[in-house]
Amino acid sequence: MIYNQIWTGARLGKNGEREEFSATVPGNIQLDYANYAGFDDISFGDNCRQFDVLENDSWEYITKLNYEKNDGERVWFVSGGIDYKYDILLNGKNIYSYEGMYRPVRLELTDMLMGDDELRVHIYPHPKRKGSPVGTRDEADQSCKPPVCYGWDWNPRLLISGIWQDTYIETGDDTLIRSCEVRASISDDMSEGLVEVSYDCDTPCVLELFDADGNKVYEGSDASFTVQNPELWWCNGQGTPYLYRWVLSNGGDEKAGKIGFRKIRLLRNTDADIVSEFPKGRYPAPITVELNGRRILTKGSNWVNPELFWGIITRERYDELLLLAKDANMNMLRMWGGACAAKDSFYELCDEYGILVWQEFMLACNNYVATKHYMSVLESEATALILRLRAHPSIMFWCGGNELFNNWSGMDEQSHALRLLNKLCFELDYERPFLSTAPLDGMAHGGYRFYADYQGGDVFNEFIRSKNTAYTEFGVPSSASLENLKKIIPEDEMFPVQDTKSWNIHHATNTRGGGDWLCLDVLKRYFGEPKSIEDIVEKSNWLQCTGYQAAFEEIRKQWPYCAMMSNWCYNEPWITAANNSIISYPAIPKPAYYSVKNALRPTLFSARIPKFDWKAGERFEAGIWFLNDKPECVCGSVEVILKVGDLEYSLLKWDNAKADANSNFEGACVCCTLPNEETDHITLILKADNEELSNEYKLLYKPKKKRSTVRLLNE
Amino acid sequence: MIYNQIWTGARLGKNGEREEFSATVPGNIQLDYANYAGFDDISFGDNCRQFDVLENDSWEYITKLNYEKNDGERVWFVSGGIDYKYDILLNGKNIYSYEGMYRPVRLELTDMLMGDDELRVHIYPHPKRKGSPVGTRDEADQSCKPPVCYGWDWNPRLLISGIWQDTYIETGDDTLIRSCEVRASISDDMSEGLVEVSYDCDTPCVLELFDADGNKVYEGSDASFTVQNPELWWCNGQGTPYLYRWVLSNGGDEKAGKIGFRKIRLLRNTDADIVSEFPKGRYPAPITVELNGRRILTKGSNWVNPELFWGIITRERYDELLLLAKDANMNMLRMWGGACAAKDSFYELCDEYGILVWQEFMLACNNYVATKHYMSVLESEATALILRLRAHPSIMFWCGGNELFNNWSGMDEQSHALRLLNKLCFELDYERPFLSTAPLDGMAHGGYRFYADYQGGDVFNEFIRSKNTAYTEFGVPSSASLENLKKIIPEDEMFPVQDTKSWNIHHATNTRGGGDWLCLDVLKRYFGEPKSIEDIVEKSNWLQCTGYQAAFEEIRKQWPYCAMMSNWCYNEPWITAANNSIISYPAIPKPAYYSVKNALRPTLFSARIPKFDWKAGERFEAGIWFLNDKPECVCGSVEVILKVGDLEYSLLKWDNAKADANSNFEGACVCCTLPNEETDHITLILKADNEELSNEYKLLYKPKKKRSTVRLLNE
Repeated sequence: MIYNQIWTGARLGKNGEREEFSATVPGNIQLDYANYAGFDDISFGDNCRQFDVLENDSWEYITKLNYEKNDGERVWFVSGGIDYKYDILLNGKNIYSYEGMYRPVRLELTDMLMGDDELRVHIYPHPKRKGSPVGTRDEADQSCKPPVCYGWDWNPRLLISGIWQDTYIETGDDTLIRSCEVRASISDDMSEGLVEVSYDCDTPCVLELFDADGNKVYEGSDASFTVQNPELWWCNGQGTPYLYRWVLSNGGDEKAGKIGFRKIRLLRNTDADIVSEFPKGRYPAPITVELNGRRILTKGSNWVNPELFWGIITRERYDELLLLAKDANMNMLRMWGGACAAKDSFYELCDEYGILVWQEFMLACNNYVATKHYMSVLESEATALILRLRAHPSIMFWCGGNELFNNWSGMDEQSHALRLLNKLCFELDYERPFLSTAPLDGMAHGGYRFYADYQGGDVFNEFIRSKNTAYTEFGVPSSASLENLKKIIPEDEMFPVQDTKSWNIHHATNTRGGGDWLCLDVLKRYFGEPKSIEDIVEKSNWLQCTGYQAAFEEIRKQWPYCAMMSNWCYNEPWITAANNSIISYPAIPKPAYYSVKNALRPTLFSARIPKFDWKAGERFEAGIWFLNDKPECVCGSVEVILKVGDLEYSLLKWDNAKADANSNFEGACVCCTLPNEETDHITLILKADNEELSNEYKLLYKPKKKRSTVRLLNE
Repeated sequence: MIYNQIWTGARLGKNGEREEFSATVPGNIQLDYANYAGFDDISFGDNCRQFDVLENDSWEYITKLNYEKNDGERVWFVSGGIDYKYDILLNGKNIYSYEGMYRPVRLELTDMLMGDDELRVHIYPHPKRKGSPVGTRDEADQSCKPPVCYGWDWNPRLLISGIWQDTYIETGDDTLIRSCEVRASISDDMSEGLVEVSYDCDTPCVLELFDADGNKVYEGSDASFTVQNPELWWCNGQGTPYLYRWVLSNGGDEKAGKIGFRKIRLLRNTDADIVSEFPKGRYPAPITVELNGRRILTKGSNWVNPELFWGIITRERYDELLLLAKDANMNMLRMWGGACAAKDSFYELCDEYGILVWQEFMLACNNYVATKHYMSVLESEATALILRLRAHPSIMFWCGGNELFNNWSGMDEQSHALRLLNKLCFELDYERPFLSTAPLDGMAHGGYRFYADYQGGDVFNEFIRSKNTAYTEFGVPSSASLENLKKIIPEDEMFPVQDTKSWNIHHATNTRGGGDWLCLDVLKRYFGEPKSIEDIVEKSNWLQCTGYQAAFEEIRKQWPYCAMMSNWCYNEPWITAANNSIISYPAIPKPAYYSVKNALRPTLFSARIPKFDWKAGERFEAGIWFLNDKPECVCGSVEVILKVGDLEYSLLKWDNAKADANSNFEGACVCCTLPNEETDHITLILKADNEELSNEYKLLYKPKKKRSTVRLLNE
């Protein structure tokens, strides 16, 4: 039996002050304190800085144990995780100490209980490496504390801690199943599924396995058994994410869960295996996902923590966001190392929706040096994560962390922390691939703007000239909606936009380089001086929509040499004023969400357009492609129309285009000299006979001042 | 007490035939058989093919045990290694079975002995994967048998097996030290050495440690102890390879050995840490050796098995070859995975001479798929190797094997075999770096010819236009000397050279691509149709001398971005007719050996010359560099002279060049229009005031047919 407890929180100041308040479990203690202390809305202005004074405090959770216990029953304190360094005390006596937020806790209290017991969780101040630059993520480079909390270019610095996972008192007799794991694997020819069952219980248990229709396919107490010709688990777009349901029971207790049979390997990318020049190097690192024997294009996004306070995240929040990902034709999400892992329900939902998860450990953009202490915490935390997540079919592979082989991190193949993670994954999760970090050779991250000289121009051109095996981060930013902006920017700062505190703290402007995602310079480049905040919102979202469309569709054209794409980033932990995300906090799709959703349709016609901005009299060229990620052949016809002002020019008809399963090709090319019309944009329309395959591109256009008589070449 | 045994060998034919003969231990059973059967000299013609019929035979070693045993003593059968799959039988009863040549054997026989005992080692046929192409190295891709034996482009196919390491009966009482290990490490600031002692003996032992002058610095029985401010072990050219001698004893038995204190790390190469373009990849893999806190240029060669029959290799042979390497200013050798590891004395000598060893596991140019059987053999063999070698200060790092991340192999980061090796090294030899394979990204292998279109021209040009972090294989071939050729090529095949059996089998000509190292096409390109075998030998060695000089010196100019160079290859296992080696079998330096030795002098003047072949009237240009790998500053002056026929033109004087420790720079540039003289070569002479820093380059030259009056521009 599970007994949730009523918790009191306490803030322990540096000078012995003590403030007590009501605490929510699971949750975060700083949020409880803010509610108690009456902090202003964290979203607005620079209110999030109210939390700065709490950074170096210690905290406590206190509860008078509340439970019932029958004769012969035992009593445990159980927690899914406590963030970050803590002691657990029973009646004032330390019974457990740990550093790390991911290892679950199960402490038997039975023989220590006296009747009117007090349990206390003492939480130490946030880890900050001695000598590290104050206020930077470097402070976290000798701990397993997710570094995003130390501040990122879309996450304000907000150091949180507390009991963030489900935590309770559990009583039970010999039938209590204290833990269990059911894992599925499948033979190389996918004809035979293997189920392995393990549990911690004093009474023997029986496992029942049911197919998705509820038919029982197994009942027994074997430690392992086989399922002949199981239904396969497929990712979104490639088939059904078929799950079998299991129930483990012994008459007294019962646990249930789901498993899926699938085989995932990472293969070398097509055509990426030959390096011909001398002296000769190696080929790129493998990054093509093979799912159940089929090479697939993985397309998705980078997930970030969907709340600043991780403890309050619910299954419902995950569900909203993951359903949006599924609807956007995504089949993968990268769980970025800056924030690391989510709660269990996230992975259960990914299993359900067929979302493959790239799961990183809690290393990002730092050089994690292998001190003895760090290595021992990392081993413990990584082991806990692997054991918690390895049974999920959705977990695609493990990855050491984010951008560790880049000069802002400084790690490499020899870094002991990464060698340890590779070893642990090898030992505990042998079949699942392990990447040291991303990008590896052949892969790439960036750029993150619609236009930048260092990206080689605009996002259209940037990706056309690139040749990478995977683009696992790239971004085009936009402003928030006006409605959201009003929730965070005081009226007197709203327009004209300047590098003032609220815009700055919400990542829109920051000349120090920590994120200036409004990119006013880019807006001015294309549209001149903005006229109003509405104008900024409109133009900035136009760029994001068109930029993401260009990037995603261009990357798809590079399949199969390129086999993976995920933009930076999917969601956001609070309302940003501007960001590369396609979903605003808490779960509001931006216009670009729909643009990405369209670009990721399984099958569509697509144009390779060399740039965004055009002018009258200029020669316009575009390659016309047929993209198909479906596991079956698709046919279609398309008419290519250029719309300039009110005029529509039919440039091409391409009949009976036919794309094999999982294939893309360029079937035609259009070109013309642009006419001179009084309009600020042109639209390239790919009008398919099947509306679902249609596409269009809204491009910037400038007429000549004096109207001339340029005509379309192919009129 | 050790008792060597007298062994009889037996060949067990497929049809039950049995031939017995005298066997030499350590050695190889096929060689014993050849001696018995009267095989002709393996070097000559195609005599090595006599061994083909033995490939699928089984073999036995038989001995009547011969030893003396006092009361209370025990008896062991001890072997350093038996090649490759075998059973050991005592009086007809199987007492041990194993697959793998590297794991040592120590079997206690005491209670099984009956007085007149027979010990028998049964050796199975060579491993050949079912379904692999017959006669190729693919046959070895599911075993730990070194693949070179299956044939390489400088090693004839010759499948050997047998008792290749020291093997004997040992008797002893409780004082017998059955095994021991003394390992040295050093603190990060190099002020404190740590010595760890472990042994397997029933009587407690005492360790004495002596410095190089014989002074005792420690005596005691601690499992570990420290040495304050120890003398450091340095590689050749950077300091003294200082060794301490230890003696472990207990009154009854005694073992001795040497240790060195040094710290080795692999660092990212200088200026290799910034990747600026977007989308942005990772930086190259670290390959700069830091020895005792100093970044050093590692320069050396690729060692190959110095005999076809590994069992007969002696310490003396190693010594001859390693002394030559030391004298050639080399500080590293790569122990290529095709042949894997040597006997202990090799590493002891490397410790003595300051030769850093790049040690690979037994994987090369195959895709070693992680079957259960293969993984278990690999784990056992790799573990044995790590435990045997990790105490040597000369071992620089471990490496999974040769060219595994290239399309002729097909492995990658996800290959379980490499993940296993990484894990084992992490667990058993934590401090020592581990490379998955070579080349990694940034590094390169090849080319292997003086000239090839696919190398972008001649070897001069190839390396000038290359930018790699390490060139760990590259080669320029030459013919053997006439004297050696006469030992292997029958007179009637000698000239003109054609693709006949003896030339072919000795790797000079092979149109099937397995090695045509005479490169007649290249000789013809530069020199026209060869006139005699003497002409071929002379011209081919000219190319090798000049080509290696150009390559090694150019690569040195790329320091510190490039931090490692080792040509393919150093030595050879038999007399080849042509090869990239700089030492002929058994240990005869080729002319190119001296060329390489000169190019690797710690300090020298060097010219960057864009190509090998010149003609009258052409503009000649060369950059003049001062190269210094010494750990101290060096000064020098040089005059640059161009010699054309009998005429000498002084092009430049560069006074008081000064190079800091471990630094290189271009200090001047010479150019001129080449005059027309009747000669076939020109010589660029860098005449230094200190003769040791001088240099010269013999280049091909063609006069104009009709003599003109071109004059040197700077005359």
